[in-house]
Amino acid sequence: MTGRIDPWRAELPENYARLMEEFGISSFEEILPDIPDPMPIMRRRIIFGHRDFRRILERMLGGEDFAVMTGLMPSGKMHLGHKMVIDQLIWYQRMRGVKMFLCVADLEAYSARGLSLAEARRIAVEEYLANYDALGLDLTKCRVYFQSEDEHVKRLAFLLSKRVTLSELRAIYGFTIESNLSSLFYPMIDVADILHPQLPEFCGPIPTVVPVGIDQDPHLRLARDMAGRFQKEFGFIPPSATYHKLLPGLIEEKMSSSKPEGAIFLTDDEETVRRKIMNAFTGGKPTAAEQRREGGNPDICRVFDLYFYHLIPDDRRLLEVREMCREGRIICGECKQMAVELLLDFLREYRVKYARSLERVRSAFGDPDATDKS
Amino acid sequence: MTGRIDPWRAELPENYARLMEEFGISSFEEILPDIPDPMPIMRRRIIFGHRDFRRILERMLGGEDFAVMTGLMPSGKMHLGHKMVIDQLIWYQRMRGVKMFLCVADLEAYSARGLSLAEARRIAVEEYLANYDALGLDLTKCRVYFQSEDEHVKRLAFLLSKRVTLSELRAIYGFTIESNLSSLFYPMIDVADILHPQLPEFCGPIPTVVPVGIDQDPHLRLARDMAGRFQKEFGFIPPSATYHKLLPGLIEEKMSSSKPEGAIFLTDDEETVRRKIMNAFTGGKPTAAEQRREGGNPDICRVFDLYFYHLIPDDRRLLEVREMCREGRIICGECKQMAVELLLDFLREYRVKYARSLERVRSAFGDPDATDKS
Repeated sequence: MTGRIDPWRAELPENYARLMEEFGISSFEEILPDIPDPMPIMRRRIIFGHRDFRRILERMLGGEDFAVMTGLMPSGKMHLGHKMVIDQLIWYQRMRGVKMFLCVADLEAYSARGLSLAEARRIAVEEYLANYDALGLDLTKCRVYFQSEDEHVKRLAFLLSKRVTLSELRAIYGFTIESNLSSLFYPMIDVADILHPQLPEFCGPIPTVVPVGIDQDPHLRLARDMAGRFQKEFGFIPPSATYHKLLPGLIEEKMSSSKPEGAIFLTDDEETVRRKIMNAFTGGKPTAAEQRREGGNPDICRVFDLYFYHLIPDDRRLLEVREMCREGRIICGECKQMAVELLLDFLREYRVKYARSLERVRSAFGDPDATDKS
Repeated sequence: MTGRIDPWRAELPENYARLMEEFGISSFEEILPDIPDPMPIMRRRIIFGHRDFRRILERMLGGEDFAVMTGLMPSGKMHLGHKMVIDQLIWYQRMRGVKMFLCVADLEAYSARGLSLAEARRIAVEEYLANYDALGLDLTKCRVYFQSEDEHVKRLAFLLSKRVTLSELRAIYGFTIESNLSSLFYPMIDVADILHPQLPEFCGPIPTVVPVGIDQDPHLRLARDMAGRFQKEFGFIPPSATYHKLLPGLIEEKMSSSKPEGAIFLTDDEETVRRKIMNAFTGGKPTAAEQRREGGNPDICRVFDLYFYHLIPDDRRLLEVREMCREGRIICGECKQMAVELLLDFLREYRVKYARSLERVRSAFGDPDATDKS
C-alpha cells in the first residue's frame, strides 16, 4: 500500500491502475458524488473501481429492484479482510429494492481445497454464516444456497459450458493436460452463480452487482462475456461489479487465513489478538527517540491499515491519528496498544453476538436437509 | 452381419470378437444356461457379451434387490432398434427385487445436438416415453428423471470430475483445444447417471446392470473406473453391463434415425412401412427364377434381420423361414410382403396403445414442474 499518500485522494498503487486500464475498469471516484451516504470504504477509495455501477445506482436512487450477488468459499477461517464484503452487503440491505443472493461455494472448496461437502458445510456455518449474522447481515433476507444443492446453478453452468472453448478457458485460467476436470469446469459454476439471479425462476433479467476484490475480476469478465452469449435465451444484463482493495496482512502483503499470524480472525481470543498486533509490521523508526523526533510513516503501516479499513470509521479521527504518527506524537508501542483496545472492544461485544448467531445459523443451515432446495 | 451362420450358435462378427477380447467383455453364452426363461434376443446371442452379469443374476435368482439403469437421448425419432432396450427393461420389470432408473439425457441432446431443453422434453415425451409406455414398460415403477432437473446426478458429476484428468478424457473421447467445455464435461454426467442409484439418497451400494449397445462401452468402462476411485466415499459396486448387437438398418449398417429410409419408426404410417421394407437390402438373387433354383442368403438379408431381432420371436418358426429362403421356397417379394404384414399387424394394435400412452405420459412428464424433483 506504499502508493497511498492521502487517504482522501488516494492514488492507486501502480498495479491497480494498470489492471484498471488494461481491463477497462472505471474509477469509482467519478461515481462517488452521486452515492447518498457512502460507506467509509467508499469515501476512502478502498472501493476504487467499478463496472457499470451506474446501472445499479439508478435503481437504488429510484427505489427500484436490483440484485446483489456474493459468495463465500468455506475454507479456513473468516478474517477481518472478509468483513469488508459483509459491510457492503449490510449497506445494500438498507436499500428498498435489493434482492440479495449468497452462495456457499462448497463445490469450490471441494475442487480447489479437497474438502468434503460435509466439512465444507461445517466451516460455512461456523466460520462464515454465523459471523455474517453476528456482523448484522440479515440472512433471512438473502437467498443463501449451497452450490452442491442448487440445481438451477448447476444446470445453468452446464448450459453455459456449451459456448466456451477450452482455449478460452486456458487463456483466462490456464490448465494442463494433467489438470483435473473439476478445476476446468468450476469457472462455469462461478459464472452461473453470478448470473442465476436473472433466471426466470428468480428475478428474471435484473441489474446485478457483485462486490469483489480485484483478484476476482477474471470471473467477472467471463460472466459478462457469457451473459452476452446467452442474451437471446435469457435476456441477461451483464453483471455490474465494484472492486475493493484487499486488506493487507499484519505481516504479509494480503491478509489470508493461510498466514494466521498476519490475520485477525473474528474468533481470535484476546491474547492472540494482542500478540498478532504487537508483531505487526509498522512504519516506525529504529528507536523510540528517533521516532518522536522524526515521526513515523502511517502509509506503510499495517496497524494504520487496520484503522483505515476498519477500526476508525470516523474520518476526522483517522486523520488526527495519522498526523500524530507523522509528527511523532504517538509511537508504535502506544499506537499498537490503541489498536488492540479498539479491536478488543469490538470483539468482546462481538463474541456474545456470535454465540447467539451460531445457534441460529446452525439450526437454519447446519443440516443439508434444512436448506432451501428451491 | 455376414458372420452369422447359425442363429443358435451365432459366431460373432470379427469386430465384436476383437472388442470383447481387447476390453475384457465376457461372452454372454457362458452365463445363458443359468438364466431362467431368457429373452429371444438372449437365446439368439443378440445379447452377446457382459461384464459382471453374474452379480445381477445371483440377485435375480435370490429375489433380492438390484438396479437397472438406462437412458435415452431425446433426439430424432424412436425406431425399432431402440425397442431392444425397452424389451429388456420389460423383462427385468418382472423380477422381484428390481429398482429401475430411466434417465432422459436432455443435457446430452443440448450439448451434442444443440437442442433446447424444451425441445428435448417434447421429443422425450412424444417419441420416447410415450413409446416406452405403449410397449408395456411400467413407467410408474421407474425413477424417470431429466438430467437438467436432477441435482443428485449433477452434484455427483462434479464430484467425480475431480478425479479424472484431461489426458484420460482425451484418451477415451478425444477433444481439441477448440472443443466446447460441455462436450468434455458431459461424460461425467453420463457416469453419474450410471452410478447415482448407489447414492445413499437412493439404494446405497447395489448391483446395477446397464443394458447397452456395444457402442456405449467406453462410458461403461469409465463408470467402472470411477466407481473404484470413489469406492471409499460411496462404496460403489462397479456397474455390470450387458451388450447387444445393434439392429442393422434396412439399407445401412446400423439403424439410425438420421437415415430415415433405412429405419422403421414406431410412428411410421402403413404406406411408409411398406415402401421402406420393399426397398430393403436382401440376400436375394438377380432373378426370381435363379432364386427359386439356388435359394437366397438370409444371413446377409435385412428383412431376415427384422424377423431375427423382432418380428418372429418363435425360434422354430424363424428357422423354418430361414430354410424356406435358403431352399428357394420363398423369394424376396413374398418374404417382404410377409414382413410388411407382420409389422403392420404389430403397428396397428400399437398405434391405439400409443395414443393412450401419449396422453398419460404428457400429463406425467410434459410439464417441467410435473416431474419428480426428488
